[in-house]
Amino acid sequence: MDRETVLFANEAFYRAFADRDVAAMDALWAREAPVACIHPGWGLLDGREAVMESWRGILGSGSAPAIRCRRARAFILGDAAFVTCFEAVGADMLIATNVFVRERSGWKMVHHQAGPTAERPGDDEAPAPDRVH
Amino acid sequence: MDRETVLFANEAFYRAFADRDVAAMDALWAREAPVACIHPGWGLLDGREAVMESWRGILGSGSAPAIRCRRARAFILGDAAFVTCFEAVGADMLIATNVFVRERSGWKMVHHQAGPTAERPGDDEAPAPDRVH
Repeated sequence: MDRETVLFANEAFYRAFADRDVAAMDALWAREAPVACIHPGWGLLDGREAVMESWRGILGSGSAPAIRCRRARAFILGDAAFVTCFEAVGADMLIATNVFVRERSGWKMVHHQAGPTAERPGDDEAPAPDRVH
Repeated sequence: MDRETVLFANEAFYRAFADRDVAAMDALWAREAPVACIHPGWGLLDGREAVMESWRGILGSGSAPAIRCRRARAFILGDAAFVTCFEAVGADMLIATNVFVRERSGWKMVHHQAGPTAERPGDDEAPAPDRVH
C-alpha cells in the first residue's frame, strides 16, 4: 500500500515536471519537513524557498526538454521513503533519488537528486509488439 | 542530538571509504531496512548483496582515488534522515545524497547517490591561516 502511494507521489512529481505545472510542483513538496534539492550539475539547494525558486526557473524556461520517468523503485522506511528511477530528458539519460515523507496530507517530497548515468533502463517495461491492451 | 549522530554516521561512511575498510563499510549499512546505491555514472544497485559487492570492488581497487567529505548537512525525518555533502575525489568534485534509518544498533545507511557538480564547496569550513588548533 505504502509502496503504491509513494510511487504515485513520485509519478505526480514527473507529471508536474513534464506539464511545467508550478502550482502542482509546489503542492507536492513537504510543508512541515525540511526540504533540499540537487539538480544535475548544481550544488545544494537548502530549504523550501530556494527549492521552489529553482523549480519556477526550470519550469518557466521555454527551452526545458521533455522528461519521462522510467523504472521507478520505492524503498519504504516507515514514515519516510525513497524512490530511484531513470529520467529520460531529451536525448540524455539521468538517474535520480527522490525522498518522501508522510505528512498529514499524504506522502510529500523532501529531496531530489539527479545525475548522469551510463546505464540505460532497457525495454523491460515497454509493451510487447503483440500486446493488445 | 539526532543531527549530530546522523552526521557522525555520515562521517563513518567516508572514513570507511577513505580507509578502504570493507568490514567497516559493511557494518554501517542497514541490516533490516532495504538498501540501494547509485555510484557516479552507474545504474541502480538494488539490495544489500549488490551494494556490498560493489563496495568490495571499489575499496579493493588499488587505483581508487582519495575521497574527502565537505559541507555535510543533515535533514532529519523522524526515524529516517538524509545527508547532503560534497565529495572531493582526487581532482573531481561530486555532490552526494546519503539516506539513513534508525535501526536497533543506531543510524544505518540505506542509500547513497553521488554525481558531478559544477559548484565548489568554498572555503567556509577551511581553518583560518592563523588558527592554531
